[in-house]
Amino acid sequence: MNTSTSAGAVLLIHCPDKQGIVAAVTSFLHRHQGNITELDQHVDHRINRFFMRVKWELAAFTLSREEISSTFVSELGEPFDMEWHLHFTDKPLRLGIFVSKLSHCLYDILQRYVSSEWNIEIPLIISNHPDLAPIAKRYDIPYHIMPINRENKREQEKQELALLKEADVDLVILARYMQVLTSQMTDQFPDRVINVHHSFLPAFAGARPYHQAYYRGVKLIGATSHFVTEVLDEGPIIAQEVASITHKDDVKDLVRKGRDLEKFVLSQAIWFHHEHRVMRYGNRTIIFQ
Amino acid sequence: MNTSTSAGAVLLIHCPDKQGIVAAVTSFLHRHQGNITELDQHVDHRINRFFMRVKWELAAFTLSREEISSTFVSELGEPFDMEWHLHFTDKPLRLGIFVSKLSHCLYDILQRYVSSEWNIEIPLIISNHPDLAPIAKRYDIPYHIMPINRENKREQEKQELALLKEADVDLVILARYMQVLTSQMTDQFPDRVINVHHSFLPAFAGARPYHQAYYRGVKLIGATSHFVTEVLDEGPIIAQEVASITHKDDVKDLVRKGRDLEKFVLSQAIWFHHEHRVMRYGNRTIIFQ
Amino acid sequence: MNTSTSAGAVLLIHCPDKQGIVAAVTSFLHRHQGNITELDQHVDHRINRFFMRVKWELAAFTLSREEISSTFVSELGEPFDMEWHLHFTDKPLRLGIFVSKLSHCLYDILQRYVSSEWNIEIPLIISNHPDLAPIAKRYDIPYHIMPINRENKREQEKQELALLKEADVDLVILARYMQVLTSQMTDQFPDRVINVHHSFLPAFAGARPYHQAYYRGVKLIGATSHFVTEVLDEGPIIAQEVASITHKDDVKDLVRKGRDLEKFVLSQAIWFHHEHRVMRYGNRTIIFQ
Amino acid sequence: MNTSTSAGAVLLIHCPDKQGIVAAVTSFLHRHQGNITELDQHVDHRINRFFMRVKWELAAFTLSREEISSTFVSELGEPFDMEWHLHFTDKPLRLGIFVSKLSHCLYDILQRYVSSEWNIEIPLIISNHPDLAPIAKRYDIPYHIMPINRENKREQEKQELALLKEADVDLVILARYMQVLTSQMTDQFPDRVINVHHSFLPAFAGARPYHQAYYRGVKLIGATSHFVTEVLDEGPIIAQEVASITHKDDVKDLVRKGRDLEKFVLSQAIWFHHEHRVMRYGNRTIIFQ
Repeated sequence: MNTSTSAGAVLLIHCPDKQGIVAAVTSFLHRHQGNITELDQHVDHRINRFFMRVKWELAAFTLSREEISSTFVSELGEPFDMEWHLHFTDKPLRLGIFVSKLSHCLYDILQRYVSSEWNIEIPLIISNHPDLAPIAKRYDIPYHIMPINRENKREQEKQELALLKEADVDLVILARYMQVLTSQMTDQFPDRVINVHHSFLPAFAGARPYHQAYYRGVKLIGATSHFVTEVLDEGPIIAQEVASITHKDDVKDLVRKGRDLEKFVLSQAIWFHHEHRVMRYGNRTIIFQ
Repeated sequence: MNTSTSAGAVLLIHCPDKQGIVAAVTSFLHRHQGNITELDQHVDHRINRFFMRVKWELAAFTLSREEISSTFVSELGEPFDMEWHLHFTDKPLRLGIFVSKLSHCLYDILQRYVSSEWNIEIPLIISNHPDLAPIAKRYDIPYHIMPINRENKREQEKQELALLKEADVDLVILARYMQVLTSQMTDQFPDRVINVHHSFLPAFAGARPYHQAYYRGVKLIGATSHFVTEVLDEGPIIAQEVASITHKDDVKDLVRKGRDLEKFVLSQAIWFHHEHRVMRYGNRTIIFQ
Repeated sequence: MNTSTSAGAVLLIHCPDKQGIVAAVTSFLHRHQGNITELDQHVDHRINRFFMRVKWELAAFTLSREEISSTFVSELGEPFDMEWHLHFTDKPLRLGIFVSKLSHCLYDILQRYVSSEWNIEIPLIISNHPDLAPIAKRYDIPYHIMPINRENKREQEKQELALLKEADVDLVILARYMQVLTSQMTDQFPDRVINVHHSFLPAFAGARPYHQAYYRGVKLIGATSHFVTEVLDEGPIIAQEVASITHKDDVKDLVRKGRDLEKFVLSQAIWFHHEHRVMRYGNRTIIFQ
Repeated sequence: MNTSTSAGAVLLIHCPDKQGIVAAVTSFLHRHQGNITELDQHVDHRINRFFMRVKWELAAFTLSREEISSTFVSELGEPFDMEWHLHFTDKPLRLGIFVSKLSHCLYDILQRYVSSEWNIEIPLIISNHPDLAPIAKRYDIPYHIMPINRENKREQEKQELALLKEADVDLVILARYMQVLTSQMTDQFPDRVINVHHSFLPAFAGARPYHQAYYRGVKLIGATSHFVTEVLDEGPIIAQEVASITHKDDVKDLVRKGRDLEKFVLSQAIWFHHEHRVMRYGNRTIIFQ
């Protein structure tokens, strides 16, 4: 979709805050004929840390793609003690998708994929159940059935890990996958495993959140997309959305209304990554919009 | 505002569900020339209980206001084992308001009062602090300063109770009142004490919810109006609202944005009572809209 | 999905308002052992018209499905001068879908169909373009390519009409179909053709609403599902939704964000019909929720 | 509220887009020891124009407040052909408020004023009616009654203009003021007169928008705050909000629900100015959030 002439680069940076960082970064890009098209920055004063996203056009940029990193490290990364990621906008985002039996989030992703709404690739779908294999088949996506029980969990995860590595995925998406990943998995993909939880976290963490919501008698239900960490449902939040409910809504109505929220917040999280707008620091996310 | 010719009556009913209740109630009203203007009903199948709100014009109704209750009890209330409340739309709702130091919810109520948006009366404001006395004075509302500490709490509450009873209030509103009421107070006003909590409950119950929200890194903040029960922040929820926040919002921004939510959900709860649309059963509310 | 024991009936009624209608209808159902599970009514005082939706269980009902209509007509329909529709909840809703080149609304409907979220049947898809034929094929749904130009429009519509009649569709869905239907079509399906317009009507009626929205500089975009009438984009509105935008959003961002709104409001309109909650009177809809 | 040590400066800039602007501005601030706390920029590619907001701490800044402008002009403003505004965060925003008979927007502003939610001053209120004078008196704000009819309009406006100039207001707020200002007034306050319109513009421009909304049968109502220009209801939009309505809502319900939207969008517009986050270019606004 992106031709080389319109290709751009996105740099995500964080480092200790001090005067002159923006000036230094923008001068660096200016010096190499990089036309900045988007720039956003944020300072978290509680922890004295600086965050920045900058996007520029590569067309007239005097550094080659290969040279950018090394030049940046020596001129800026090391002097400012930066952590940073460099992305190119013409490289498709590769997703590894986990599902169980529910199809709505998977369909939502597939629709955006096949209609070219997103510039993504889906090299594989992994599931602990065979139920959604026919959908994957329809779209010619390899579907790996990996049943999980208490005994085989570690072993199965190792194989899943190998599949994900081999497929060179950028992001792992748990699209209503009903298994908890162990740290042997999440440690291999720091800040790269995204889950959708069917409540407005931290409310109703854990199992059966719509039932919990029904019994508590709330007037809003929600959904949350978040990074997966070792502690269940406590990872950094990426997107949240809610919908109104009334006393007329039974649990099955909450489940029905909630599906639309789940699709929405998961797709938002993927979109933010698609645009390289997400940074994580501690238990917080910065979404440069 | 309501003249006697346009006056109406509202009946709120709940009872064990069985066939024929709606037919019986509407036939009763029809028989006495009551023109039904609003009718809503709900069945909670899990507990097999029937809920109903019906509003009718009094103009041509053949029963006097005094006769309605006794006639209704014998013809319907007892046969169907109903619990019910009868309200007349031309009677102003009398509010007893508790405040501490924050003024935004109080102002919001006062604006709706003095502009006649609501047909209410405010016979008294009670506070554990003197700070908002000048506001009450501006609107000629008695302001009772009742400082609370661990030693005097029960005694002060008894006096507050006496003031509320003397003022004949229909509803007690905790408009960011920063004290927990004991059961000696709430038991006297079952389903008639309303609080606003500054989070989307059950998330962030307890103290300093905006700080909790900030540190959890949520992308939405909320506010909840609810009935006060003996368990703090666990009473039946009446209304909830949320607003989006981003990583740029510090705690003070959450507090600022949250104020608008607090005003809104508290005013909604009062409005629903103003219209006699609220029923409570167990830990749930039914809001007939 | 619904077995005969749990099957229900839904009656939608409107008639001149007068005392005693609710009593008469509920007594009728009670007399025949119909257990009412949902009841809602509305009076439009400006036009003195009464609207009602009532749902009851058929299990113990003493009238057969065939007898209901004739009995109802003589006992209630004629005496009260009612217009009414009777639906059975176990009968799937049959949709005829029109599309052009955009796939997102079609995918959204198909996902709810194949996952059994909705109890619907899709006997045919009609399009003026071949582009989406592969999608229909994937789901084994007949796809009729009916190119439209100024010369053949009336003739093609006649054939489409024949296809829809033959397929016995309950509802015609224009899922981003980019042709205006003539009255020869809409007259045959009064209150049964639904369109989605990509703006919060009445703003930005007509062509290219996202461009119009961009150039007007609005801070919200929207989408609207509505009945199709002879006047373009002026039919009775069924559902509307909006999303926030900022100065950073270009037309292509509006288009992207708008797709999610379009899917949502169109699916809501179908869902309301699925539940038989929609009545149209004049240029207004009553959605009993 | 702001002491001199925590005082900051905000610079709003727009100019033809070219490479190196961000680098030049941030280097300028860095050179003079200005610690940047907020920075946001935007390029409108359709018109090739660059917009920027930058905020920095004055504590260690080596230029005095008086020197900033002249130094900035020669070093940056002229070379880059910039239009710009400089604000200091410790200077209260001075509002001149126009009202007619409706009080809700005025009360909302007053509550934020007296509770010190906003750092503003209100040197005067102008009205074509005496109705709200008692409110102004309660808060000790001069209230000027300026009745308007076709004959005296130009003359009265001249006097109003003199009052506003004498009061040295930064912003003119039409808080449900039911008169159209002529260009003799708006020309004197370019981008500094804000109105609230009670619909989601461009829908229902002109008179009685809630009636228009009711008769169109929309499912959402809205409110819009916007800059006042010579063409009624077509000025650049600052903020918009909507609320759901149903068939049960009569015009008076729309008016009631709409009041909360009107208060909200008008207060948002004032808040954005309070924080110096608003730029206008052509018929669009840029709200740096």
